[in-house]
Amino acid sequence: MAATQEPWQEIAARKRASVRALIPAQWLIPAAKLEEYKKSERGVLHVPRESGILSAEEIKITESYDAVALAEELRAGRLSAVDVTRAFSKRAAIAQQLVNCLTEVFFEDAITRAKYLDEYLEREGKPLGPLHGLPISIKDGFNYPGVESTIGYVSLVGKSKATVASPLVKLLLDLGAVLYVKTNIPQTLMTADSDNNVFGRTLNPYKLTLTAGGSSGGEGALVALGGSILGVGTDIGGSVRIPAYCNGIYGFKPSANRIPYGGQQPAGRFGSPGIIAAAGPLTRSVRDLEFFTKSVIDAEPQDYDSSALAVPWISAPLKIKLVIGVLAEDPDFPLLPPVKRTLETAIEKLQAASHTIIPLTDAPGTREANEIAVSLFQLDPTKSAVKKILASGEPFIQSVLKGAADFAAYQAASEKPPLFPLPADGYTLENLWDLNVARADYSERWNQALVKAKIDVIIGPVAETTAPPHDTYGNSPYTIIWNLLNYPGVVIPYLKADQSIDKTELFPTGLARTYVASEVHGAPCGIQLTARNLRDESLLAASHIIASVLENSS
Amino acid sequence: MAATQEPWQEIAARKRASVRALIPAQWLIPAAKLEEYKKSERGVLHVPRESGILSAEEIKITESYDAVALAEELRAGRLSAVDVTRAFSKRAAIAQQLVNCLTEVFFEDAITRAKYLDEYLEREGKPLGPLHGLPISIKDGFNYPGVESTIGYVSLVGKSKATVASPLVKLLLDLGAVLYVKTNIPQTLMTADSDNNVFGRTLNPYKLTLTAGGSSGGEGALVALGGSILGVGTDIGGSVRIPAYCNGIYGFKPSANRIPYGGQQPAGRFGSPGIIAAAGPLTRSVRDLEFFTKSVIDAEPQDYDSSALAVPWISAPLKIKLVIGVLAEDPDFPLLPPVKRTLETAIEKLQAASHTIIPLTDAPGTREANEIAVSLFQLDPTKSAVKKILASGEPFIQSVLKGAADFAAYQAASEKPPLFPLPADGYTLENLWDLNVARADYSERWNQALVKAKIDVIIGPVAETTAPPHDTYGNSPYTIIWNLLNYPGVVIPYLKADQSIDKTELFPTGLARTYVASEVHGAPCGIQLTARNLRDESLLAASHIIASVLENSS
Repeated sequence: MAATQEPWQEIAARKRASVRALIPAQWLIPAAKLEEYKKSERGVLHVPRESGILSAEEIKITESYDAVALAEELRAGRLSAVDVTRAFSKRAAIAQQLVNCLTEVFFEDAITRAKYLDEYLEREGKPLGPLHGLPISIKDGFNYPGVESTIGYVSLVGKSKATVASPLVKLLLDLGAVLYVKTNIPQTLMTADSDNNVFGRTLNPYKLTLTAGGSSGGEGALVALGGSILGVGTDIGGSVRIPAYCNGIYGFKPSANRIPYGGQQPAGRFGSPGIIAAAGPLTRSVRDLEFFTKSVIDAEPQDYDSSALAVPWISAPLKIKLVIGVLAEDPDFPLLPPVKRTLETAIEKLQAASHTIIPLTDAPGTREANEIAVSLFQLDPTKSAVKKILASGEPFIQSVLKGAADFAAYQAASEKPPLFPLPADGYTLENLWDLNVARADYSERWNQALVKAKIDVIIGPVAETTAPPHDTYGNSPYTIIWNLLNYPGVVIPYLKADQSIDKTELFPTGLARTYVASEVHGAPCGIQLTARNLRDESLLAASHIIASVLENSS
Repeated sequence: MAATQEPWQEIAARKRASVRALIPAQWLIPAAKLEEYKKSERGVLHVPRESGILSAEEIKITESYDAVALAEELRAGRLSAVDVTRAFSKRAAIAQQLVNCLTEVFFEDAITRAKYLDEYLEREGKPLGPLHGLPISIKDGFNYPGVESTIGYVSLVGKSKATVASPLVKLLLDLGAVLYVKTNIPQTLMTADSDNNVFGRTLNPYKLTLTAGGSSGGEGALVALGGSILGVGTDIGGSVRIPAYCNGIYGFKPSANRIPYGGQQPAGRFGSPGIIAAAGPLTRSVRDLEFFTKSVIDAEPQDYDSSALAVPWISAPLKIKLVIGVLAEDPDFPLLPPVKRTLETAIEKLQAASHTIIPLTDAPGTREANEIAVSLFQLDPTKSAVKKILASGEPFIQSVLKGAADFAAYQAASEKPPLFPLPADGYTLENLWDLNVARADYSERWNQALVKAKIDVIIGPVAETTAPPHDTYGNSPYTIIWNLLNYPGVVIPYLKADQSIDKTELFPTGLARTYVASEVHGAPCGIQLTARNLRDESLLAASHIIASVLENSS
């Protein structure tokens, strides 16, 4: 480190202060009150409406709609973009104080834009686009002109102000959206605790001692608190689905490149020959997942981003009764009691509603996918993410250290030798060819199993656990599998962990997870629905059906 | 080489004899006659109908239709599958004797299948599928049960009998097609002269001293001679388009994975992280390109092959007047006189027909694409193709040796340093990341140029040259560029090289190509049409329009 380099702590503190300064004083929760909220066992979901900061109208705007309904009000001019933008900006500011979910705020820009949109509607007599006036929050990696994209690296503070909007940002603006905040993420984006040395840790609004998930953890917590009606995250191993699940909301990882992913700040390095990440929405309803995805795809994202697929939205044929494949529990990744109960309950309800349930016993296991994927994640020979950390002198966050340790522990505890042991000096091009063959073969076996059984949609867990205590999320095999296969995945919140039913259990497998019922009592549970690559439309259609069965029966 | 190993020459001779033995004696051209044909300056396109081997009805069947029209006759039962299969089998056998275009023949299997189809139509009163009774020839790499897939490697002779059909083969059979022959290819599949030590060299039926192109050179020559009405090739750098062009027929390289590519015999190694090859048709008309592609896509190829895209066929909106971008000639790859004249003439005709012509001066150059692509082609650290050659003791073919030498010569002659110099011990994973970044950046610049100018379709050459004398094809920058970009490409035959117009020219650039007018006099010329990734449907629609302008005006 050069002698003149400012200590990383000071750089980070200054950055945080500069963001905090953008929150108007009248939107601040009094310090004593805030302290009290933070100590509560109840979580903080109830705080925004009780805070006294939001007017009755603002509470209504931020709580009474999903994005589909709110966009309808906005396009019809029954709500003004300015009122809606102000309401969500205030509520996001409240959420920020409670769970530290934001990285950047640009409320003034947003209000200016909202005014423009209100005038446009007035003048033209029609909305700018389907998202006219709709506030949308975005993960920190997306570039918004004039705003930094540090993604939590101290080394990028003061050096990452965007001049050009990411293709998706440009597209959303063209559709009429209002962008107003960016949201928190973990150091490296490759772990499920949204903690970093610039912005700190995002907390779970259901229970502050639990993780908010990651890497789109700021989005998850913000949407759960009503500070956003629709957030955009990215997902290479579960980073949309995990925070949606941990925060009890809906999440969708589309097939890669249906939503434009280009032009973001890279956590590691551009040019990976491995798994392709996908951008996707976190929302309050299944129909919002579809509304966002269809709006983006209808806007021809391939004109914004050469990596986006020129695959139009094709409405899925109506299917009333589904053939639902059940992902087998992998003995190497045993499901904890609330997860198991949730899945079993959901399957019972679906069976009772006359859907066909087929255990996917022919499909290959989750462990194999996890091993191939984790190897693919470790390909970068220059370890770019590590360099970005070391550049400032900041330390690794606990979750990153633990993630690596957990994977090593899992491999050590397992009786099976690793499929692709990491060579001392890293993977080579030779290894990559072998990994590609293993991946293609794995995909082919999955495809054949699903075609043979005529599966419409797969149901499975999002993780072995609910949102666990901070820095214990560890491996994410049940989300990673679908990234390896490039299958779209939807998370639907369903039930809650309940210590009176889901008893403490310590697993005899030697693997890392333990389950202490009281720790996670009240944490959201949920299910994950997936379908074959590029069947995004039919997955969303099936998700509607399944969500309505679960919502009407629970 | 083990002492007991049989000399490669004997293995190859035995293999050739075993294939020859499958041609019925009455389909053989008398030796003296054949000798005479082979010496002729006229080429051999006229031979099949004059050979006396085909009946008048068989000449009609093999000459009077394109695939669309013939399939219609077959589905309606106006022609029997047996008659059609026999006619094309005979004509393929004649073609084989003239230009050595086949590797494997399975005429008996084909007749058995044709009988089944005739009975099916009779019994069921409806055809089995859209390709009912249609004979289709396939490149040697596709697996057909009971038949070898040596792809010209001596080391695979006797060791490559397929037990499982390639996904595309299975799909075509499910649609009612009759498969009857496999076609010749070059050693390694990575050069444009279809020559190998097992089956020997395929000749150009227009002029036997010229290359038939490659790597799907057997298909090109067979279709040109009427021995097939529709052939299936594969293309990773021009291998469908080059032989279509060299043999004066139509060819289509779709966007990768729209036609299932899986389950083939690999010339090198499975698992490449580089350019993805595409399977595609070689035909007698543009509408046949579409007929084949649409039939395959409508059959949901993703159910046959996990690597096939679940992207349905979407008819392109009708567009009467096109915006046609003209690919700039790259000064590093100057166009030879007949190529230049063909392109200029086509552009004049299209302009006269009121289409808008826009020179693509903003788009990045061909050379850059070629450098990135050629580096990606050389990634395999184990040099699997080389190993497959060395395993039998067979030598490298001239075209493979020349291809490597030509590329080295081009790099040496050029004043520009190579973008990605090949390290002494081969490319590394580190290089691959850099190549991926360069490729993504190159794609983005192309995309922006095309979006900005609202280009419907791009017109350009297929190569700097027409089909040149054997083993001089060398580099293929004007086809490779579209593989790098994963843009679909159509070849349309148009005009011929004419020594009275296209005068001998020796290029002053120091690069390898020379042009001797008399050598290529009479060789087919043509154009290449391309469009952005996944715009296969609109490219084919534009190709219809452009082909009809050219055909009606020439």
